[in-house]
Order: sequence, then C-alpha cells, then structure tokens
Amino acid sequence: MSLFLHVVSVDEAVAAAERIAVPAGREEIPLSDACGRILAADVRSPADIPGFARSVVDGYAVVAADTTGASEAMPAMLACTGRIAMGRAEGRPVRPGECRYIPTGGVLPAGADAAAMIEYTERIGTEVLISRPVAPGENVIARGEDFAEGGVVLAAGRRITPRDMGVLAAAGCDTVTVAVPPKVGIISTGNELVPVGAVPGPGQVRDANGSLCAGFVRMHGGTPVAYGIVRDDRASLAAALERATAECDIVLLSGGSSKDDRDMCADTVASRGEVLVHGIAIAPGKPTIIGRADGRPVIGLPGHPASAFVVLHAIAAPLLRAVTGERHVPRPVSAVLGEPVPSARGRQDYVRVRLEDGKAFPVFGKSGLLNTLVQSDGLVVVPAGREGMEPGEAVEVLLW
Amino acid sequence: MSLFLHVVSVDEAVAAAERIAVPAGREEIPLSDACGRILAADVRSPADIPGFARSVVDGYAVVAADTTGASEAMPAMLACTGRIAMGRAEGRPVRPGECRYIPTGGVLPAGADAAAMIEYTERIGTEVLISRPVAPGENVIARGEDFAEGGVVLAAGRRITPRDMGVLAAAGCDTVTVAVPPKVGIISTGNELVPVGAVPGPGQVRDANGSLCAGFVRMHGGTPVAYGIVRDDRASLAAALERATAECDIVLLSGGSSKDDRDMCADTVASRGEVLVHGIAIAPGKPTIIGRADGRPVIGLPGHPASAFVVLHAIAAPLLRAVTGERHVPRPVSAVLGEPVPSARGRQDYVRVRLEDGKAFPVFGKSGLLNTLVQSDGLVVVPAGREGMEPGEAVEVLLW
Repeated sequence: MSLFLHVVSVDEAVAAAERIAVPAGREEIPLSDACGRILAADVRSPADIPGFARSVVDGYAVVAADTTGASEAMPAMLACTGRIAMGRAEGRPVRPGECRYIPTGGVLPAGADAAAMIEYTERIGTEVLISRPVAPGENVIARGEDFAEGGVVLAAGRRITPRDMGVLAAAGCDTVTVAVPPKVGIISTGNELVPVGAVPGPGQVRDANGSLCAGFVRMHGGTPVAYGIVRDDRASLAAALERATAECDIVLLSGGSSKDDRDMCADTVASRGEVLVHGIAIAPGKPTIIGRADGRPVIGLPGHPASAFVVLHAIAAPLLRAVTGERHVPRPVSAVLGEPVPSARGRQDYVRVRLEDGKAFPVFGKSGLLNTLVQSDGLVVVPAGREGMEPGEAVEVLLW
Repeated sequence: MSLFLHVVSVDEAVAAAERIAVPAGREEIPLSDACGRILAADVRSPADIPGFARSVVDGYAVVAADTTGASEAMPAMLACTGRIAMGRAEGRPVRPGECRYIPTGGVLPAGADAAAMIEYTERIGTEVLISRPVAPGENVIARGEDFAEGGVVLAAGRRITPRDMGVLAAAGCDTVTVAVPPKVGIISTGNELVPVGAVPGPGQVRDANGSLCAGFVRMHGGTPVAYGIVRDDRASLAAALERATAECDIVLLSGGSSKDDRDMCADTVASRGEVLVHGIAIAPGKPTIIGRADGRPVIGLPGHPASAFVVLHAIAAPLLRAVTGERHVPRPVSAVLGEPVPSARGRQDYVRVRLEDGKAFPVFGKSGLLNTLVQSDGLVVVPAGREGMEPGEAVEVLLW
C-alpha cells in the first residue's frame, strides 16, 4: 500500500501528535534527584512559611511608633532588654520604650512590629539610640509572607528548576511526585548507514540522526532507547518497530530520506496501526510521518539531519510535553532580522539562524548538512501566510 | 580574627574566583552519555564528511550542461542508464547525454555534476525529459562540504548539545573526552535550620539553600555533595569544612545570614587558608566571601535564598566554568523594562524580573523570600554607575 502524501499544517500535525500521546505515569523520588524533572502534582505549603515573623536585618526589634520622627540630631532612645538567639522562640514581649538586639533571621518578639537596622543605631550602655524611623513591618518578613498554609507553591507540569529545589525544601518535600520519563525508542533506517564506531565504506555515512535524537530526547525529559540501524526492507523494519513499541512509550523512526524509504516507513507503521499524517507544510521537514503502531505514537523523521532536528522541535517536543504533562513552552528570544529570508507562501518555514548582538542572521545551507546546525543558535518561524521576511523585521528566535 | 569587610566590584570578585579555580581533569566517556557534558579537547573530523558527493533529492544524476535552457516547452532529453543503489559506490560514469536515477543520499556517479529533482522530470521508456535547468553542484553535497578532513568540528569548552551529538556521531566519536564534573561540597550553617524532612519548631526554618545550591550545581555541570546542616560554632564548621575540602573540588558555604555568622565563616576559611574577598558591591549579595581553604576554592554565600541565588549566578557560575573549561556564556534575552528600577550608584544591582510579552517587570520583594525567585524568570543587571533605570529602556535579561 502506498499512502498518498496529503500535506497538513504544522498546527494540525501538532494536534495529531498531542492526540495520540499517552500520559506518563508518576513516581515519587527523593528531592535530591528532582532537578529537571516534571512535577506530576501541585505542591502545596504544609504550613505558613516562615512560621513566624523574622527580621531580615541585624539590628533591634522595636515598636515602630517609638521611632516616629527619629533623626541623627534627635534620635529615639530605647532601653535594650537583651539579645535574641537564632532558632529559638522569644518568650518575653518588647514593650513601648524598649528594644532587643535581633540577628538576621531571628524571631520578632511579641510587641515588636519592626526591626531597626544596626547601621542606624548606636548603643550606649543599656540604651540604644535610633537615628532613623522605621514603619510597622519594616525589615520584617511576616508569618506566611513567603507561602501561606495550603497555597500552591509549585503547580503540576512545572519542570523543576534549581530555584524550585529551594522552594520544595522549604515546603518540606523530601520526596517529590514527578512524571516517569517516557522511554523513546530510536530506530535508524537506511542501507547507506554504518554505526558511529565504523569507518564508512564507499557510499556509506555514519548514523548521525540516532545520536541527534538521543540527545534531544534526553534534553526533553525522556529516556532514549537505541535500536541501532535497520536495513531498508519491510521485514527488518517491522521487526524493529514491533520490538520498540513493546518496550517503549514512543518510537522515533529516523531516515529513509528517499521517497521509497519514506513509503516503506509509512506502510510499515500503517500495517501495525495507522498513519495520521504523512507530509507537513513545513520546510525543512515536509516528508514527516505521524502515526500509531501497536498503540504507541510513532514519528517518522526525515533523513536529513537538519530537517530531522526541526521536526524534533516542532512536532516531537509537543508530543513529549503531552506525555510528561510539562506545561513549559520554550521562551523565544527577541531579535531583529539581519538579512532577508525568502520563503514560499503556504508552508511554515523554520529558518536556522545565528544570533549576534541581538540580530538574527539566517544560516543558509542544505538541510543534509550538520554544520548548519552547529553554526546556528535556533530557529525563526516564517508563518505560512508570508512570502519571506525583510531585514530589520522583529523576529522571535526559538533557541535549540 | 575578625576580617574587615572591604567591598570589591563584581568584576574583581569574578576575577578572584577564576584565579583560584583548579582546572578539572578529563575523562573518556561513551557518546551516548555525552549530552550536556563539557568537551575537554577539540574534536577534528577524521576524514572528509561526507566522503563522496551525495544527492540531496530524489531524481536524476546529470551533466548540468546537458540541461542548459531546458523548459517545460523544450525539455532536455537524456538517456537513463539505470538506478543508483543506496550505500554503494557507483562504478560506471555518467556521460553527456545520459542520466541515472539517484535516491536522496545516493553517491553522485563520476561524470555527473548535479541532480535534477524528480518533480521536474518525466520518464518515457528509457528516456528522461528534464524541464528545468540545473547548475553544476545543484542538489548535491560535495565531498567534505559538511566537514573537511582534519578540521575542527567542535571546539574544546563547548557544552555538548543534542545537535552536537549528531556531529560527534558523524565524526566517528564513539567515545568523547570531557571534563570530569567537579564535586561541589555544600555546607549549610545556621542554628535556626532544620533538615527538609523535619517539622520546624519555634524560630526554626527548613534548610532551603542546601537544595537550591545542589540544583544549581547539577545544572551547571558539577556533582553536588551534601554535608547537611552545621551548627553555628567554629569547631563544627571547621570540621565540616575540613571534610568537604578533602572530598570535593569546590565548597559552597551557605548562610550564616547574621553578621556574627558571616564573621565566623570568614574566620574559619581564613584559618584553613585565606579570604580573598569579603564583601562585593552587588545587591542582593553583598556579604559574600571568596576564599581558599586547604587549597580548595570556597564561596561563602549570603543566607537569604534570593541573595544566595544571585551570587551563585554572578560568582559561582564563572568559577565552575573556569574549573570545567566551559566557554559557554549564558545568552541574555533582550527586553524592554516595564517599570522603573531604583538603584544606588556604586553597586551592581541584580534585579529579579518577570518576562511578559518582551517586557521585563521587576519582582520586588525581600531577598529572604523564595517566592520572588519562583515568580521571576531571570535577572537584569543595573550597572554600578547608574542610579536606576526607566520604563522603556532596553535591558538584557539573564535567564535563571
């Protein structure tokens, strides 16, 4: 069966990929392993954080009203009633006319409502002169000011960043519930391919796309599973696909850059399920296949490395996000186009660009070349309705 | 010994941190583990890549001159002399007046110098009509066009990206020489701190900075080693520091947010080596310590989480890069300031900002609050010579 190449828009292709995504399971892991993982459930604060009003400066806990109008010429004079120790509750209240030494992070005692910075005080015996007024609440973090009890501190779908690690620690999460990283099987097809460790013979090239896909999967929250290189025949491909769908959550078929190979890929996917998309209005990357085999999402990538990489970003990334539940959408970088970009109306062009001083310069080159990928920093999307873009136009660059 | 807090500029502090960096060793690892690691040596292409001229389209290998002036009305007519198989050298040359079917990726035969796309051809028996002219080299990747033999394909100091994985595979690197990730010991000090799994008592808070530092180290190419919470006394801190410097390449001391704690940290570092910097003209983050203990770089971070995180980015990141040899400098994102930012002349302010539609909005809040970190996307640096910045000013945002 040869499938007709019915070209769909990028949006339709993404919708198809998202539709066949099977949400990942969840697992509980130690906080120390959580950085970079995707939160599978909202994290709520188990209590007010902090659990008490804290000073954010070294100085004196005071009743703010006592400092009204204080100046260097006319300082407020308060009786110092001791020193607050770190990590302990302070029993005795501070009364009007009194103050108490408080270190940064110390518990603000009852009665006090502000902290005066040590820099604006002078101690004379048991008296403290305060030369600047403080307002109620000044230099103090109120109880629950960071996170209130029961409030969502981090929402499900968030990719845990280093700063989130601090928040999770503060909220007492010594374990975290995250999405299980999807296993992504990678099959490279092509009679011209040899493994990375081999020396290519006449007409042969090493399998670059297998490693490209593995790196991409790892950076996008999945676990790559390599199935190596499969000869261009239906039986070999069907056997590899069967094994990959049995062991993995998603399968990437790479290459088959010629039309015959693409048809074979599509036929093989169709024989084990269905082909939903065969051809996307995207350049490079038009001959992409999206389908389902043995119930698993399968993406058939074009053979040219640059085309494959564009399709990984445009189609595989949303599929992976749909599986892991990640709500992160990569933030584009604003830039100004440095050179004109030609395009054809009716297809979405993904132009590789190099960024330099806020300008985006197109990296032209055949999509079979890896060096265009290395030289580029990301992609500029030329919308399907445009016939190209002019120098000086504002563009958004999706960083690789 | 109490050390005088002599405040230095951010540039001086970075230079001090880089000066005490000890370059990491190198190790050889399988390519499949290399994504995200730092290349420790230049990678050169062992041969021309590709090793032969390849077609980038499905079509016909031709002598370009035979197609000069070809059009739909007046196509060039060539004799088809067969079909090129993938992954094999093609022995027979193509002569003027001839063509041969070539799949994408096939070896361009001797004599042929271009490939005509199948879309602009028509086969009639053994003849092929070509309705568009092709120029010499058109639709062909020349031998060595991607990478020439002996040329540097990836330079030492590069953090290996997914697209670099493809390049390394093409260059035959089944192993890669990378920097050994530095072990970074993390010690949290403070009598008010309790571990993540504990419920804080009166006046106590959980140790957030330990996890913040661990996440940061992991995301910046190091291996965090947790030494837990140390009481605020010299003997405990000295013992922990001795253990950490014996086992790690770098030590981060976190907290001690009060002046007494900071002095104790500085004294303890000085007693095992030297304090190079005690105080940086940066806000937040002024009370930072940079020193060396038992020959290892030590950074004493401020206790406030947001301050600590700014210092990790401003000082610890360049130190880690100096150790691993990473030449990557984080690319700032251009934005327009959405609200005014006050600042004081003479110090470099790192303002947390939230990005929204290309505008950067300052996230104001006490540096003791974690929620200001979660709400922010990165930092805007207000140079030391400025007294603040106005809405509408162009700024560069360093993403967290």
